[in-house]
Amino acid sequence: MKNFPLIGLGIATVGASGKTLDTFFPCISFKDSEDEFSHHYEIWNALMAENVTEIKDVDQLNLQNEILNDVISNLDQGKTLILCRILENKPIETVEEAYLKLHLISYKHFVPNSLNLENLFDSLQNVAWTSHGPIELDDIDKRILLSHKNNESLEIKSVDKFPCLTDYIIPPSVRIGDASRVRLGAYLSEGTTVMHEGFVNFNAGTLGPAMIEGRISAGVVVGKNSDLGGGCSTMGTLSGGNDVKISIGENCLLGANSGLGIPLGDNCIIEAGLYITGGSKITTYNSNNEKVSVVKASELSGCNNLLFIRNSQSGAIEAKINPKSVTLNKTLHKN
Amino acid sequence: MKNFPLIGLGIATVGASGKTLDTFFPCISFKDSEDEFSHHYEIWNALMAENVTEIKDVDQLNLQNEILNDVISNLDQGKTLILCRILENKPIETVEEAYLKLHLISYKHFVPNSLNLENLFDSLQNVAWTSHGPIELDDIDKRILLSHKNNESLEIKSVDKFPCLTDYIIPPSVRIGDASRVRLGAYLSEGTTVMHEGFVNFNAGTLGPAMIEGRISAGVVVGKNSDLGGGCSTMGTLSGGNDVKISIGENCLLGANSGLGIPLGDNCIIEAGLYITGGSKITTYNSNNEKVSVVKASELSGCNNLLFIRNSQSGAIEAKINPKSVTLNKTLHKN
Amino acid sequence: MKNFPLIGLGIATVGASGKTLDTFFPCISFKDSEDEFSHHYEIWNALMAENVTEIKDVDQLNLQNEILNDVISNLDQGKTLILCRILENKPIETVEEAYLKLHLISYKHFVPNSLNLENLFDSLQNVAWTSHGPIELDDIDKRILLSHKNNESLEIKSVDKFPCLTDYIIPPSVRIGDASRVRLGAYLSEGTTVMHEGFVNFNAGTLGPAMIEGRISAGVVVGKNSDLGGGCSTMGTLSGGNDVKISIGENCLLGANSGLGIPLGDNCIIEAGLYITGGSKITTYNSNNEKVSVVKASELSGCNNLLFIRNSQSGAIEAKINPKSVTLNKTLHKN
Repeated sequence: MKNFPLIGLGIATVGASGKTLDTFFPCISFKDSEDEFSHHYEIWNALMAENVTEIKDVDQLNLQNEILNDVISNLDQGKTLILCRILENKPIETVEEAYLKLHLISYKHFVPNSLNLENLFDSLQNVAWTSHGPIELDDIDKRILLSHKNNESLEIKSVDKFPCLTDYIIPPSVRIGDASRVRLGAYLSEGTTVMHEGFVNFNAGTLGPAMIEGRISAGVVVGKNSDLGGGCSTMGTLSGGNDVKISIGENCLLGANSGLGIPLGDNCIIEAGLYITGGSKITTYNSNNEKVSVVKASELSGCNNLLFIRNSQSGAIEAKINPKSVTLNKTLHKN
Repeated sequence: MKNFPLIGLGIATVGASGKTLDTFFPCISFKDSEDEFSHHYEIWNALMAENVTEIKDVDQLNLQNEILNDVISNLDQGKTLILCRILENKPIETVEEAYLKLHLISYKHFVPNSLNLENLFDSLQNVAWTSHGPIELDDIDKRILLSHKNNESLEIKSVDKFPCLTDYIIPPSVRIGDASRVRLGAYLSEGTTVMHEGFVNFNAGTLGPAMIEGRISAGVVVGKNSDLGGGCSTMGTLSGGNDVKISIGENCLLGANSGLGIPLGDNCIIEAGLYITGGSKITTYNSNNEKVSVVKASELSGCNNLLFIRNSQSGAIEAKINPKSVTLNKTLHKN
Repeated sequence: MKNFPLIGLGIATVGASGKTLDTFFPCISFKDSEDEFSHHYEIWNALMAENVTEIKDVDQLNLQNEILNDVISNLDQGKTLILCRILENKPIETVEEAYLKLHLISYKHFVPNSLNLENLFDSLQNVAWTSHGPIELDDIDKRILLSHKNNESLEIKSVDKFPCLTDYIIPPSVRIGDASRVRLGAYLSEGTTVMHEGFVNFNAGTLGPAMIEGRISAGVVVGKNSDLGGGCSTMGTLSGGNDVKISIGENCLLGANSGLGIPLGDNCIIEAGLYITGGSKITTYNSNNEKVSVVKASELSGCNNLLFIRNSQSGAIEAKINPKSVTLNKTLHKN
């Protein structure tokens, strides 16, 4: 993990009204890290009038990267070159800072839940994400009308505050079946496969290789070698009334169409089709398969080696000692 | 809500065979309403030879809108300007009328289930919806072959009778995570967010602000301030054998991966993972949490303030008095 | 079903590194079948130095098809014309053979599970599938950077080993709500509708008309006139620990959000929301609705006329004799 202060070099899209619609940060300079761009920090910092500063003279940036130089020297109308500085991990103040923080997570410089994302929703514009880039919503009716003049159609992929990850960053050694289902701000570790039914929100993701065919809500992290089955749900804290941040340990399996409302330990299995909420009352068993007690699921938060099932005869939810360990299919996961 | 008679000015895409593939209606004139286009009704009506009439001379339309005039004066080959008149709410007779009725719902001139949609499926063509507009299926093999000559790929987004809403209309103050999952004919009220896992069919939608992460089937309407959790299902009447039209009242919460097969009243909650069908036998409780009786779920249709859960020890489905009221997260919902 | 040996004429996309990213096979010649291209087999076979051979001189192919000739005579840089021969149904050796076998299933020349797909994952490259065709992952960062210079955005649809079916083949008389959810290698019979929530993996599909709103995992086949409800799950054998190949008979209904972990016979129904795994203990009933016994679900594999429900009062999973037969909605299914 890297640290503040840092400065991002960004290409912003500015709408007709003058509002910034998005910002793409191809490179970020950390004051206290050693990498390709770290020695730029002081040079760029000297250019900062405020925490977000437009850069007109590309040479000032002192970039050695030829392709990058060429791109930022030839930006089209509607694109602006900026520097965005973040000195401390405080609430978000600008749309550029919002985008920079989402990039910081998706570049895996910071793990989910380590950045202050207060004001994120308020900072982001609702934008039409189209085959011709981000378009301001005030203009969209006119653009749709114009697109029907001929068949060079304008595809509107989404109308949202968040763009999809792959418009900005492709993390190394991952597979993503349907790119529209992973938002910028997702944290995808090497060896992660997000299948078509998978979904990864911002500030959420995988800490190692993982098979994701279910939904990772905002704030949820999944440990290495875990498998989220098709259509499974992890409760988020943004809506739905849950206050506890959900997480999934290592070597876990959430069955297809199952659901999770507690933080799960390592080496746990939830049976296909079973939804565990914090308030579910669960009969626990010891390793001799003898009944021990009935507890609220929330009391099993973080416990390892549990197999959660609904008894198919009595209808009771039970937690037994998980007899087998989960292993990912290696062929599938060699990305 | 507006009323018949009405005339839509439409841009139709005509396939090589001469069949109309789709029609986009940028404006609609109502005889008995007062709005920007209402005074056009008599002028346009005088041009109608039949209920669908091609317009060659744009000046006849007497439009004052410069952008619209420019677009319809310069239509490309394969695009035709038409007027489509609907005098009464009768079964659909033409593909243009089918599109006009879908527009009427998505513009929110008519609420779901108020228009006669008989013959809708028979009227619509099955079309390849592509990055180069709608393409007739007879031509598609050739077009795919040509697209592989180089990398200017032809993206085929769907092969369907219905296009997606955002190719035609972006309702004000909504967010749509994945535009491909909302069909033309959806009714989305201001303050509605349809997340990536949400889906809204034609003739269905939201009557006020709502968070939609589940599937709204054809004919289903959702009251204001309700929340459909990730992957939840509402039973449709098109397939699957259900005859009763499902609806959801105000301030309801359908938990993630839950399902609904009855019309739900206001201020109801269905627990995550629980599917209520009309035939489910449900134990009801009074406000002192004492057992009252066992009834079929269909007998609870439209009842308010119910909390539906499956008892996690006995496996029985229970309906209790809902102790809390559902509130949408205001930050998330400020579109 | 056709048979080996066979030769495919393919257009391959070659990345900057020289690796083949994909191959599109517009025509396939079978030695022992009679069709448009069968008499080409000996001519093409004579050109084969190895089982994959580049073709520089288009005239050698002796094609009569003008459009095809025009396309393959004018391939852009990065596209290569090849012949790929498969003599026997052995493990896959080349990326071209992998693509040819996926085409063979999607053209419905071979049913799912009849082709040897060993080494499939190892043969396929992980590729960025974009609005500018397949792009090698080594180049993708640069391409994303360049795309932000202006608003002619590069859409990355997926990062995956498998492309989507409709980039190559549109099977006749089908509807597909969201094309990104059907992979090349899917087998879709006439009269099949795959709704937006449906998904069809490679080497899987439908043997007749079907309504698919759930997920068909790799290796799973669905009999004619069956209906997979919204969000339902069929257990795959690729991950998740299931060893038995799942199938669904004719005239079956899997309810919304249900799941299946056994091979299902004909005329069966699984209640909405119910997940049947092989290990579920199920109380069976006779046609007089009298309890018969409790068996593991796997013992009911392939049995006809069963209705699976979870008793909404006792929580027990029960299998009763299915009193009604499932019929698809004919209007919906006339593609």
